[in-house]
Amino acid sequence: MERHFHEQLQQLKETLLKMAAAVEASIGKAIGALIERDDKLANEVIAADERINNLEILIDEQCLKLLATQQPMAIDLRFITSALKINNDLERMGDHAVNIAEITQMLNQQEPLKPLIDIPRMAQLAQSMVKDSLDSFINGDVDKARSVCIRDDEVDQLNDQLFRELLTYMLSDNKTITRALDLILVSRNLERIADLATNIAEEVYFIYKAQMIKHHVDTKNWEDIRSRT
Amino acid sequence: MERHFHEQLQQLKETLLKMAAAVEASIGKAIGALIERDDKLANEVIAADERINNLEILIDEQCLKLLATQQPMAIDLRFITSALKINNDLERMGDHAVNIAEITQMLNQQEPLKPLIDIPRMAQLAQSMVKDSLDSFINGDVDKARSVCIRDDEVDQLNDQLFRELLTYMLSDNKTITRALDLILVSRNLERIADLATNIAEEVYFIYKAQMIKHHVDTKNWEDIRSRT
Repeated sequence: MERHFHEQLQQLKETLLKMAAAVEASIGKAIGALIERDDKLANEVIAADERINNLEILIDEQCLKLLATQQPMAIDLRFITSALKINNDLERMGDHAVNIAEITQMLNQQEPLKPLIDIPRMAQLAQSMVKDSLDSFINGDVDKARSVCIRDDEVDQLNDQLFRELLTYMLSDNKTITRALDLILVSRNLERIADLATNIAEEVYFIYKAQMIKHHVDTKNWEDIRSRT
Repeated sequence: MERHFHEQLQQLKETLLKMAAAVEASIGKAIGALIERDDKLANEVIAADERINNLEILIDEQCLKLLATQQPMAIDLRFITSALKINNDLERMGDHAVNIAEITQMLNQQEPLKPLIDIPRMAQLAQSMVKDSLDSFINGDVDKARSVCIRDDEVDQLNDQLFRELLTYMLSDNKTITRALDLILVSRNLERIADLATNIAEEVYFIYKAQMIKHHVDTKNWEDIRSRT
């Protein structure tokens, strides 16, 4: 029974890593499609969403089976219930990548508005946050989880900076408005992906420190680290 | 033991309903603050977020306790694991209400752009979707869950319609751009709340029909109903 439990748990971890890799790839491709103005690549992102959705269903089933048959306790129980939430977060990141791919296809029909600098940087950060949040979850690496939260502040700053820049485009030339709005939406989708990765990192802290970081008063040290960035 | 289990489950249901009522109230107040240009009401929404966050922690604890001590099976297990996800969805809706309140405070510093018609309608729909998705979850009412999904299409249409209308404002007069952008963001936050309520409704279908509606091929009837709207 004990051995069987660890095999099932190992399977769950592997599926979660597959799911994270798929989401990370979709974000990369969506931004690649935007930069290269490549509709075919955007279509690949849209097509890949089915696999991500199927992985979500599989992970839910693996979690339910573990809960129903193994009666896990303490840290194992917390790991599995957190996996259910994290699964949901990953699937939503996949949806955001699809949103970016769809916006890209609209942008590709028009002249480029400006060279893209902040958006690729945001995408790179978001991808690394997805990877590291999942790695920290699987390996119980609280320091790595913390580093994800720190990067979230950088993504938020880039999002604000880009918003202000695009606003000046819109104000100075109304022919730029629809394209600038599209880029604002791309940026917001990346920011949402980074937020979701941060949720995962907070969940890791909760599991491994058995301490609620989200919304909790007793998180002074963590808040200090976040506010230093 | 059995009786104790039902008491704990009943407590969980009551906390979930409290959480849903708090979120519904925050959405109502945020839109009230926008319509009445009432900064004080917007502040109430921002202040109420702490209670919503505390309820989220309480619900997570109640779910974990049930899983750890009662070893629930079948529909009870599914109910509790779904409650963990739904809890997360409700907390995010609360965050969207706070976003709306914060945008409202920026809008209140400027002249009104236009009479608000679609946004109050969207807010009304979103509030009813939050209430009905939770009621359907607690009472296992699959028909009510279905009606939530149907309303989501209406919210999406209003969101698209408002986006196009605000775009014409921006194109014809660049002094409207920042206010129009703010209203677009309010509308997107309402649309996200409606999406999250729809997630809950889909989860209800999963629990009570033991059938995965999300992303599943075998949902012909449901898709027919949704596409008729």
